[in-house]
Amino acid sequence: MSVLVVGSVALDTVETPFGKVTDAVGGSALFFSAAASYFTSVNVVAVVGEDFPQQEIAFLNDRRVNFDGLEVRSGKTFRWGGKYDFDLNQRETLFTHLNVFEDFVPHIPEHYRDTPFIFLANIHPDLQWEVLQSMRRPRLVVLDTMNFWIERTPASLQRVLQAIDILIINDSEVRQLAQTSNLFVGAKNIQQLGPKILVIKKGEHGALLVDRDHYFWAPAFPLMEVIDPTGAGDTFAGGFVGYLARANDFSSPQLRKAVIYGSTLASFCVENFSLNGLKQLTHDVIDQRYQQFLEMTRCE
Amino acid sequence: MSVLVVGSVALDTVETPFGKVTDAVGGSALFFSAAASYFTSVNVVAVVGEDFPQQEIAFLNDRRVNFDGLEVRSGKTFRWGGKYDFDLNQRETLFTHLNVFEDFVPHIPEHYRDTPFIFLANIHPDLQWEVLQSMRRPRLVVLDTMNFWIERTPASLQRVLQAIDILIINDSEVRQLAQTSNLFVGAKNIQQLGPKILVIKKGEHGALLVDRDHYFWAPAFPLMEVIDPTGAGDTFAGGFVGYLARANDFSSPQLRKAVIYGSTLASFCVENFSLNGLKQLTHDVIDQRYQQFLEMTRCE
Repeated sequence: MSVLVVGSVALDTVETPFGKVTDAVGGSALFFSAAASYFTSVNVVAVVGEDFPQQEIAFLNDRRVNFDGLEVRSGKTFRWGGKYDFDLNQRETLFTHLNVFEDFVPHIPEHYRDTPFIFLANIHPDLQWEVLQSMRRPRLVVLDTMNFWIERTPASLQRVLQAIDILIINDSEVRQLAQTSNLFVGAKNIQQLGPKILVIKKGEHGALLVDRDHYFWAPAFPLMEVIDPTGAGDTFAGGFVGYLARANDFSSPQLRKAVIYGSTLASFCVENFSLNGLKQLTHDVIDQRYQQFLEMTRCE
Repeated sequence: MSVLVVGSVALDTVETPFGKVTDAVGGSALFFSAAASYFTSVNVVAVVGEDFPQQEIAFLNDRRVNFDGLEVRSGKTFRWGGKYDFDLNQRETLFTHLNVFEDFVPHIPEHYRDTPFIFLANIHPDLQWEVLQSMRRPRLVVLDTMNFWIERTPASLQRVLQAIDILIINDSEVRQLAQTSNLFVGAKNIQQLGPKILVIKKGEHGALLVDRDHYFWAPAFPLMEVIDPTGAGDTFAGGFVGYLARANDFSSPQLRKAVIYGSTLASFCVENFSLNGLKQLTHDVIDQRYQQFLEMTRCE
């Protein structure tokens, strides 16, 4: 089964203790696609400016990523600049130039409208809602959001939450959205708002799947050097949704595997700048690390 | 096999959003003993004042906890007062009256000196070292410490670290002791200082066992209400060391089980004030929750 992603395409300028890249390709839609395309075909809806270096993402065409929904508008591509200190859990945004992304309105090509698996990356919840109105009978809808929308557009966010199946969210955002310090109480409260399944990302502490009334804990990979955390969340989502789409099954055992595949892809992402960690993986390399993940919680 | 614990016995005054207790029995040696005694016999070395309400810990005698090493000195028992806000990961110390604990010198009774499993709770590292000099051929030495000793007595701490097998430590203390923001690099650095095995406690994120060059992630129990986190770390240590002593085996598979038993006991501890959550457990209740822990990481 194929996957639709609606999100951003950006040129990122990122500085970490390990180096710096300028105008490197990034954005939620690309990180997601680079990961999901190891599992299934991906349809992308996003916008770039005329300055976008298309050849940088040509490798994704070879992996069944369809860019018919990538609008090229006159103007400049969305640019983001950020800096990470040695504690790579914290980042400082140096600049955000929305450019053509500022008035992005997702246009879903007709031949995308039957895509059964949907990932709505972090954009305005009204746009996420509009996308869903354009789609015919999706099998599974997965959504990402952020503190900005929780604070600024709560009503819009609540509307789209009612229409989705799975919410991918940070632990701090769970507390903020549910207004409680207890993560498990927070998850329960958010389930009342719509999504029956939550995937809570906890950075170096791994991820927690809240699947109706069951919990599944996934570790993080013990990386001695995290080169660049940018895109880790969207890469996680790509591995997670991509795996589910390939399995065409989101039963509890498959959801658990999907969380580990998401974690696996994210661990490759942060080992390099931009999309570089996701360019040349093989299925053997992915599956080997997947097994290492399982080994880290084995107890018998 | 039996276990020796050297640590504090205290009267705690604790306030949380869920209630308050005044002069409730606590301290590292008691939380540890209350947990470890579900698995094996425990020898306690600690000090109290004449005001200590011995009847409050009579239930531990019935569970094979030996208090021959509990010195009663003229004066008052160590008292600690603390307050937790809704975010129970943070606590504020309201007062610390060391009283008879101020010049505590552990005296190891002759019939304790062959105890094969040793837990050195969080006291001055010179005292921890002295205890080890009194013991004959221990099979396994496990140590706890804290930021205070890392900052104030680094040379003493380094000396005792060279003489132990397993260090139980918080994630923030790993970063502080190893002077790195990366937890995995930090663990590796600390292994160079002596202990080949680390158990890193991460509160609501569970625990991480670093066993030579293998990692094992244990979840935390999804508690909707944490009534009082006081003693959770020492209770964890009690379940961990107690289980290993009963197994008389600290191979990798047993270490993993021990971490889950430690987490299990800690989860009962925080469901109530003082030792109350650890008073009336049965082996069935413990094993049931142990199985729930395993279920939370199952992926097949």
